Amino acid sequence: MAAPLRLGLAGLGTVGIGVVKIVQNHAGLIAARAGRPVVITAVSARDKSKARDADLSAYGWEADPVALAQRADVDVFIEVMGGHDGPAKAATEAAIAAGKDVVTANKALLAHHGQALAEAAEAAGRVIRFEAAVAGGIPVIKALTEGLAGNGMRRVMGVMNGTCNYILTRMQSAGLPYAEVFEEARQLGYLEADPNLDVGGIDAGHKLSLLAAIAFGTRVSFDAVELEGIGAISIDDIRHAADMGFRIKLLGVAQMTGRGLEQRMTPCLVPADSPLGQLQGGTNMVVLEGDSVGQIVLRGAGAGMGPTASAVMGDVIDLARGIRLPTFGQPATTLASPVAARVATAAPWYLRMTLLDKPGALAKIATALGDAGISIDRMRQYGHEGAHAPVLIVTHKATGADVDDAIARFASTGVLVGDPVAIRIEEV
Amino acid sequence: MAAPLRLGLAGLGTVGIGVVKIVQNHAGLIAARAGRPVVITAVSARDKSKARDADLSAYGWEADPVALAQRADVDVFIEVMGGHDGPAKAATEAAIAAGKDVVTANKALLAHHGQALAEAAEAAGRVIRFEAAVAGGIPVIKALTEGLAGNGMRRVMGVMNGTCNYILTRMQSAGLPYAEVFEEARQLGYLEADPNLDVGGIDAGHKLSLLAAIAFGTRVSFDAVELEGIGAISIDDIRHAADMGFRIKLLGVAQMTGRGLEQRMTPCLVPADSPLGQLQGGTNMVVLEGDSVGQIVLRGAGAGMGPTASAVMGDVIDLARGIRLPTFGQPATTLASPVAARVATAAPWYLRMTLLDKPGALAKIATALGDAGISIDRMRQYGHEGAHAPVLIVTHKATGADVDDAIARFASTGVLVGDPVAIRIEEV
Repeated sequence: MAAPLRLGLAGLGTVGIGVVKIVQNHAGLIAARAGRPVVITAVSARDKSKARDADLSAYGWEADPVALAQRADVDVFIEVMGGHDGPAKAATEAAIAAGKDVVTANKALLAHHGQALAEAAEAAGRVIRFEAAVAGGIPVIKALTEGLAGNGMRRVMGVMNGTCNYILTRMQSAGLPYAEVFEEARQLGYLEADPNLDVGGIDAGHKLSLLAAIAFGTRVSFDAVELEGIGAISIDDIRHAADMGFRIKLLGVAQMTGRGLEQRMTPCLVPADSPLGQLQGGTNMVVLEGDSVGQIVLRGAGAGMGPTASAVMGDVIDLARGIRLPTFGQPATTLASPVAARVATAAPWYLRMTLLDKPGALAKIATALGDAGISIDRMRQYGHEGAHAPVLIVTHKATGADVDDAIARFASTGVLVGDPVAIRIEEV
Repeated sequence: MAAPLRLGLAGLGTVGIGVVKIVQNHAGLIAARAGRPVVITAVSARDKSKARDADLSAYGWEADPVALAQRADVDVFIEVMGGHDGPAKAATEAAIAAGKDVVTANKALLAHHGQALAEAAEAAGRVIRFEAAVAGGIPVIKALTEGLAGNGMRRVMGVMNGTCNYILTRMQSAGLPYAEVFEEARQLGYLEADPNLDVGGIDAGHKLSLLAAIAFGTRVSFDAVELEGIGAISIDDIRHAADMGFRIKLLGVAQMTGRGLEQRMTPCLVPADSPLGQLQGGTNMVVLEGDSVGQIVLRGAGAGMGPTASAVMGDVIDLARGIRLPTFGQPATTLASPVAARVATAAPWYLRMTLLDKPGALAKIATALGDAGISIDRMRQYGHEGAHAPVLIVTHKATGADVDDAIARFASTGVLVGDPVAIRIEEV
């Protein structure tokens, strides 16, 4: 049997300990599959004395992850520390410079520095793998980069932040407002230290930008992702959307259009009976649409010790088997610089507003929509709440600009109470 | 750029022409991703003069697929002819002997001869790939062999024959009996020339046996798959199962138990609100359960020109990129000879029977179940049809042997009209 593949593991949080457990518990299975043993030679974390649920006594210790990355007895540097700058970046760069392959779970690092890191790795003949960075245990990077490599990709979509999906589905099932479920999620430990990474859509936006780079052969352009979090989603909208046959999801969509690359991570309505609509709790789902394969849907745990460590180990075993690919599926220097689409593809929209109970109020709204070039697919007016009449409208396809125009026109009708809500309906 | 990868394509049916279209339409995309061009040098089919929806004039022609497999200007032999013996087998063996890699969509060939072919290929340093043989466009072989390689696999399940799922879901939605929908499917061209390959569960059983080999590191043992088709499923059972919150699926299940390897391809009830239960029409779904990753669900088109050709090209591009693995994920000579579990894992069962309208009839059935060691979870008695009372029972967990025992006891009660129906409920 060939020489062992030697791992240096930086980060001993949940994911790092999960990797240790797999390497220790499945040594025989992994060696059979990889054709060679996979061993950990050394580890690194901030606090050596911290109690951890694994026996690390056989491994070397490095206080500095850069020193770990440079060790002569390490073939693959595993980065599961997190953070898009600082030690994670320095250690990854050091690993590449020292001739190591890198396996990382760090979506933020790659969303911000993926192009430079990929170019450096490929110039050095090294490989960066990041299955664990996107959708946890779901092997979506592999499916997209390899399994669907014969397809011109049309669209990539996903619910890729389990915390947001937990909050939205819990709001619906328990009938609780956002603030209350947000607090629940915080107490359950579901939120990042900076919760805006989750509920602001940033974490999921990082992941989308990585999928888009592979799907469309373009440089990672996280800055061009249209980001909108879930903080403004009200229980009213969740209920009304359900009445109309929809669910609200924080949905990422990337597609190449005639106007350029469109990348959005925003709340969207999807049909309640679609796979995306049926997704409950912290589970992730990615939808890959190719010109030959049609629609492939992948579903699984998006986070947690086991699933994320499974993804790390999938990459490690690929390296042990000699599977080596460019980071984003083709050489980084051949990736195109994408033109960001300034206008998103037209879509139906869900509009909710409250009207004064005046004769002709609804007609004024309908006229304003028509003047903005938007036609109405369905409309529902609810029983009056005091003097106010809530109204739901599902439009035919319209651009976001047309919807903004319509909302501006609503303001001048004088029949609106408060601000209208507009949420895109993604056709899945 | 490296030298082109040269394909010899045997079989110019739907899948073969799909491969030609991708190679022709996506030459640039494929070269960018693979790092080298992928070209077809020669093709083979039974009838050269047949009209086909692709321009084949630039390719060499071989009337004999064996001659194609041996051509010096072919690196990869693509076998999309079908049939588990005869030309497909001869040509695949010839390709390996001539030092070619093989990409095949032929589940029957591998289910019957996979071990011998894999050993021959690996002895010759060649690779056999078969993503297209299982679940069409879904990259499930790759997900299982590579993406989840760090997992001890617990269970693999799947709805992998689109024709059967079409028939079962159409029976339910249209309220039509099996024979009528079977005839519809035949007229739509959904059935194999020998329809028993589909509705008898053989085709899906072939696929299951290949997944089991990878998941559990065992030799393909199709002969040990418990096979039961959908021909005996009545519209009554579909309706009653729906009343109890279930759907009937032709479900494949493979799991390693303390009693050996269990492989079943049989009609099962699954919860209506589970991903498997929600699967409509010809779509395929595979569920992979690993000890770290938990449950991964993959869904997509299981057949058709585009999806199947997408899977073939995923394998081809892997080979162009230098990705080379043993056929079943570890060397064929290291695969264990599985002991087949003689008794399937205990499960809840759905029982339907018709009772004579006599006092004490139901008590006799309940007593017979108890005597067989089976307890009742739920029971439903329907309004009398003439003198007969239909009864549905959902049991607690029981083995198939216990259910057989109970059914034998039912016969001696003297209260049964006709034969009872027993269908396993798979816990998904």
